[in-house]
Amino acid sequence: MAQHITLFTDQPLPLTLGGTLSPVQVAYQTYGRLNATKDNAVLLCHALTGDAEPYFAPPADKGWWQDFIGAGAAFDTDRYFFICSNALGGCKGTTGPASLDPLTQKPYGSRFPIITVQDIVAVQKALLEALGIDTLHAVVGGSFGGMQATQWGISYPDRVRNIINLCSSLTLSAEGIGFNHVMRQAIVNDPDFREGDYYDHRPPANGLKLARMIGMLTYRTDVQLAKAFGRETKQHGAIWGDHFQVESYLSYQGVKFLDRFDANSYLRLLRALDLYDPALGFASERHALQRIQANYTLVAVTSDQLFKSVDMHKSKQRLEEAGVKLDFYELHSNFGHDAFLVDYSFFEPMIRKGLAK
Amino acid sequence: MAQHITLFTDQPLPLTLGGTLSPVQVAYQTYGRLNATKDNAVLLCHALTGDAEPYFAPPADKGWWQDFIGAGAAFDTDRYFFICSNALGGCKGTTGPASLDPLTQKPYGSRFPIITVQDIVAVQKALLEALGIDTLHAVVGGSFGGMQATQWGISYPDRVRNIINLCSSLTLSAEGIGFNHVMRQAIVNDPDFREGDYYDHRPPANGLKLARMIGMLTYRTDVQLAKAFGRETKQHGAIWGDHFQVESYLSYQGVKFLDRFDANSYLRLLRALDLYDPALGFASERHALQRIQANYTLVAVTSDQLFKSVDMHKSKQRLEEAGVKLDFYELHSNFGHDAFLVDYSFFEPMIRKGLAK
Repeated sequence: MAQHITLFTDQPLPLTLGGTLSPVQVAYQTYGRLNATKDNAVLLCHALTGDAEPYFAPPADKGWWQDFIGAGAAFDTDRYFFICSNALGGCKGTTGPASLDPLTQKPYGSRFPIITVQDIVAVQKALLEALGIDTLHAVVGGSFGGMQATQWGISYPDRVRNIINLCSSLTLSAEGIGFNHVMRQAIVNDPDFREGDYYDHRPPANGLKLARMIGMLTYRTDVQLAKAFGRETKQHGAIWGDHFQVESYLSYQGVKFLDRFDANSYLRLLRALDLYDPALGFASERHALQRIQANYTLVAVTSDQLFKSVDMHKSKQRLEEAGVKLDFYELHSNFGHDAFLVDYSFFEPMIRKGLAK
Repeated sequence: MAQHITLFTDQPLPLTLGGTLSPVQVAYQTYGRLNATKDNAVLLCHALTGDAEPYFAPPADKGWWQDFIGAGAAFDTDRYFFICSNALGGCKGTTGPASLDPLTQKPYGSRFPIITVQDIVAVQKALLEALGIDTLHAVVGGSFGGMQATQWGISYPDRVRNIINLCSSLTLSAEGIGFNHVMRQAIVNDPDFREGDYYDHRPPANGLKLARMIGMLTYRTDVQLAKAFGRETKQHGAIWGDHFQVESYLSYQGVKFLDRFDANSYLRLLRALDLYDPALGFASERHALQRIQANYTLVAVTSDQLFKSVDMHKSKQRLEEAGVKLDFYELHSNFGHDAFLVDYSFFEPMIRKGLAK
């Protein structure tokens, strides 16, 4: 079970694009032990649809980084104290659109404000303060979590010694925004969406399912799908539904997602991903990136169809030009964007090196 | 104006996957002159959403291969007689789901049968017979049209001397089927779809618009979208709608599509693309491909995100192993899959060579 804490009760959280939130509940989990000098804390930032629990003690259900965390693992619980919290705007225990608005005692729904990576990171900082942690040995994240890791180095440069960003560029590409756009439209088009105020009714299940299926196609690779499904058909598949096995797989992934995610959270986190811009609040991106004092490890996967190689190389260049101490790795994996969730042996050495600085 | 002919009036068209159609109206257009020996006819097969008119005499609106066709152009109207017809199942003058079912005098809608590339090609063959053309100097197509070109060589091996296939593999990949699946679900999810019987009501515009936007992301490239739009935002964009320029572009493309396409046709042609299998009706794909007597020109574009390089190379291998006389070209273009529609200078030399055999 995740732990919970309520923050921003006296002073509301000011949001980057306007508005405030108060209070903010945060779901979090910790692994390992904080040492006496409090210098072994590592913050793990989850990706778009993650949660506060990347690991569960066996034989519980698997966490999203189950293989990466444990005694002797890349995220070594014998050495480090790991903290992971559900992102602001999410639906896994941290305040988000499905939470009760204290003004109305109804879920925020359409009234939940637009949030940014900067806001998500501000809440993480408040959580660490509440836990008595001043400085992070490292902040680590994949995909959307990698953007949070970058922003830590900009917002709180003297509070983080190492940044590890797996599979995300400094900003999302036009194509990536395009895919997020069609995912959002899938949800917004659903008559059950009701402009976000659906909590008293049916949720926009068809739209959210479709959005997830679109997303899956960008997280995986053509090679992987060809290997797993090829052109195999189902025995009794419907011609407008799941005739091919790959359709059945996507539909299954879409339906599975409905049990664990809220459409409003998905919309807001997708938009935060589009909007992420390190330059926000600074004279330029260069000025923002120059603030980073941490050692920065950036890992790219050549087969990634969402954060493509060309964009990862541009991010490398932008970080280097700003004088960031950078280690850049680019490696082959068949798993595409989702490699950072599933390909432990691939990422293990880079994570170990990135943490050992 | 396209010309029209009514075929299969006495004998209905038997469909590959069952059922028949009678009559079948076909919209077609011709360019250039059939010579006395009737050996200069070239069939142009359109892609998924094309029509019978790839060219218009100036100053009319542009056809989808406007730059490719004309006196002295790659498709040289001084030398060849070009025929192009709207595909069976389409919505541009050839019998499709929006056509009147003679049994009910209402549009076919949900009752329109499942069609295949084999059926589309059978209708093209009947059209050519009606026009008094026995043998084709060449059959040419891009994307879905390339599959039709391939099938010509299999269905009527002694009736075609040259095949030119631009940007399509012998069969669609699992990933390609996946993208077609999410496009179909976008339409089927739309409450206005009414299982295909929407002709008395509003068409499923939201669903078709979304499907087109998803498709556009596979037809274009990340490099192209980055160059054209980057992360530019609109002055007054809605945060859940078109905030970024790339979103506005996609939405515009989606809306534009509504004026020119019918959702039922889109569903059926997408499914014909998924289902295309040269082996259909033969002991194996090898047996089918071995029937091809024509010279076969296959052109791949490295940046194509729909028919990916790896699949084009596999098709090359499968054709070679079947003993097909193959010229394979793979070239770089920034335009991705849509290159075959827009990058004339790129394709011109291969088309000229492919036609000159």
